[in-house]
Amino acid sequence: MSTIAKYPNPETDPRVKAVFDDIRATRKSDFINNMWHYLAFDPGLLEATWAEVKAVMATPSALDPMVKEMLYIAVSVTNGCGYCAHSHTAAARAKGMTAEQHADLLRVISLAGKTNQLATALQVPVDPVFDADHRP
Amino acid sequence: MSTIAKYPNPETDPRVKAVFDDIRATRKSDFINNMWHYLAFDPGLLEATWAEVKAVMATPSALDPMVKEMLYIAVSVTNGCGYCAHSHTAAARAKGMTAEQHADLLRVISLAGKTNQLATALQVPVDPVFDADHRP
Amino acid sequence: MSTIAKYPNPETDPRVKAVFDDIRATRKSDFINNMWHYLAFDPGLLEATWAEVKAVMATPSALDPMVKEMLYIAVSVTNGCGYCAHSHTAAARAKGMTAEQHADLLRVISLAGKTNQLATALQVPVDPVFDADHRP
Amino acid sequence: MSTIAKYPNPETDPRVKAVFDDIRATRKSDFINNMWHYLAFDPGLLEATWAEVKAVMATPSALDPMVKEMLYIAVSVTNGCGYCAHSHTAAARAKGMTAEQHADLLRVISLAGKTNQLATALQVPVDPVFDADHRP
Amino acid sequence: MSTIAKYPNPETDPRVKAVFDDIRATRKSDFINNMWHYLAFDPGLLEATWAEVKAVMATPSALDPMVKEMLYIAVSVTNGCGYCAHSHTAAARAKGMTAEQHADLLRVISLAGKTNQLATALQVPVDPVFDADHRP
Amino acid sequence: MSTIAKYPNPETDPRVKAVFDDIRATRKSDFINNMWHYLAFDPGLLEATWAEVKAVMATPSALDPMVKEMLYIAVSVTNGCGYCAHSHTAAARAKGMTAEQHADLLRVISLAGKTNQLATALQVPVDPVFDADHRP
Repeated sequence: MSTIAKYPNPETDPRVKAVFDDIRATRKSDFINNMWHYLAFDPGLLEATWAEVKAVMATPSALDPMVKEMLYIAVSVTNGCGYCAHSHTAAARAKGMTAEQHADLLRVISLAGKTNQLATALQVPVDPVFDADHRP
Repeated sequence: MSTIAKYPNPETDPRVKAVFDDIRATRKSDFINNMWHYLAFDPGLLEATWAEVKAVMATPSALDPMVKEMLYIAVSVTNGCGYCAHSHTAAARAKGMTAEQHADLLRVISLAGKTNQLATALQVPVDPVFDADHRP
Repeated sequence: MSTIAKYPNPETDPRVKAVFDDIRATRKSDFINNMWHYLAFDPGLLEATWAEVKAVMATPSALDPMVKEMLYIAVSVTNGCGYCAHSHTAAARAKGMTAEQHADLLRVISLAGKTNQLATALQVPVDPVFDADHRP
Repeated sequence: MSTIAKYPNPETDPRVKAVFDDIRATRKSDFINNMWHYLAFDPGLLEATWAEVKAVMATPSALDPMVKEMLYIAVSVTNGCGYCAHSHTAAARAKGMTAEQHADLLRVISLAGKTNQLATALQVPVDPVFDADHRP
Repeated sequence: MSTIAKYPNPETDPRVKAVFDDIRATRKSDFINNMWHYLAFDPGLLEATWAEVKAVMATPSALDPMVKEMLYIAVSVTNGCGYCAHSHTAAARAKGMTAEQHADLLRVISLAGKTNQLATALQVPVDPVFDADHRP
Repeated sequence: MSTIAKYPNPETDPRVKAVFDDIRATRKSDFINNMWHYLAFDPGLLEATWAEVKAVMATPSALDPMVKEMLYIAVSVTNGCGYCAHSHTAAARAKGMTAEQHADLLRVISLAGKTNQLATALQVPVDPVFDADHRP
């Protein structure tokens, strides 16, 4: 079930083919997951989305690639995005996430889901010491 | 502004004092942030919440303490919990998060916020290869 | 801070006055909380919103009035609506919510916030027995 | 999979039939989508929901009907409501949304998803100039 | 579709068996729903989650068991957790929720979803009288 | 209150100055709102964010600029982002949104918030006719 039909032969469009080729080269895999197939209905949107995902997730940066996938899972789960929970859990595993780390990730994000509710329900005032603008 | 009044002298209750003492000992700091002051209206809720936060966040586990704080930030921001964004950003910094790592964290969680919207708007079907129950 | 200016004398508009009069009569109180003052910028929106709030929240129905306020808190907290958390916590208290019930409410809604994260992260398949369309 | 069973012959209830007849007349179509079939378990809830949807979405107003469907999509996607993303994308298309407009809609709502995360993570203070109550 | 494979014979692990036995005894039923099967990949996470669900949901407290299930539904629906909406609707029914109460629950949580949007869009300032810290 | 301190003189950094200059030129205004001041802590993040906002929101496209601001409001309100609700309501007004259109916007996004809750609570199955992949 999708809101836009999947393109039967997306790579007949050279802009789509260029993105798909770069996904394959970057990931060293022939597999193109559905997200990119569906975004192909608008080549400009596909190009911009992939460019950003590549820059943020597939380029060495201050955070470890596996940690970045786990952060992606944390946001996706909180937003209730089933597709994203699936694709980024697979990615985190491919980047080395162990079962122990997965369980730990679940413990942290579910505890956060819990205490977020408490802090919001109580409308706890922010401690002045947390205010970066007035930190001594 | 809060929905429950802050207790003027919460540590006159021995159960609250025991939790506050353990928070101070665990964190090696005299500072007790507002979250715990407000939860003190129900000592049982305070005890259970602190016990879980201590077990998950302040006990060595499969994930690095700073990474756990960043995951907490990711969930808290997505849930729109201002208090939690403040307290866990402060905690991540106290555990060594650099400005570069902070910017990287923001890049990942904002990109996730973006692509979650795309995947949900398109209702992208989950690729069969992502289904753990049918993985070969 | 608001996105629409509060009207200085909203009751000079007879449609606004009629709604405010009905709020006072229904609640047996002279106090009109800010929500209604701000909605007054569009009398039609004010009338429709109050009519529904009155019908659902201030009319005897299958659920107890205090329980309805607690359900309202549960949704408002999960949506991160600070104003609503405040106004409905005050309403629940006015309808008899005790400190013990309040703590219990917090325990349930924070546990739900926690297990929602677990079920979504695991993408737990719905048990066939839960499907109302195929219940024997 | 649903939490309430779909009624086999909902139109044997005259209140349900009246609503279904009005849906068909308003939309000039014989098709009644599932939302209304499932709401039929409680005729009062069905009547009130349809009355509001008709008044807001199917009555000429200050905003264009296609724009209103796109706003509906924006909220539904952000709330992670798959059914609503489907039904309102179909409605927006029926009201003339082109592929270019659809792509533009996706660009805006995904960018909003992204910058919402940034503003919340940074807890950016609201600029005084945005405060409608103190606008000069 | 799940992100972790379901264990074929989870009760060969004595810690998992102990939890499953306690679920059966507590609920007086042989049925173990999928949530617990999937959590069984990490016995510690399974034990801690069940212990909390049992303490909060299956232990007499200040709120009625059916009310607690309805609060759980309110949070789960707002978070967009389909699994949780299913399991807790089934639980609320098992604890006596009638069709009238179910319709009333839907009326309240959907009205809350509506007015949360209004209050947030208007950024309605919290009335000073709602502030528990400054209540006379 | 913010999680990162506002830079006292951000334009001493030439990359920040270049972005601020472009914001002023694009908007034909000297005012730089707080979002950009706070993002200035990481010039690369500032540049990338502004480039995308400029491309999507300040460049002629298939949707009207005011409509795009209203879509932005819809997402921001649903995500509970107060800062974004403020800044984009101001932007929509600057682009011509009337009070009638504002009220209509509120009616649509609050109705969506309401029916999203109903569809999710009922777990309404997607009508086959909505599935773009199998549309005749």
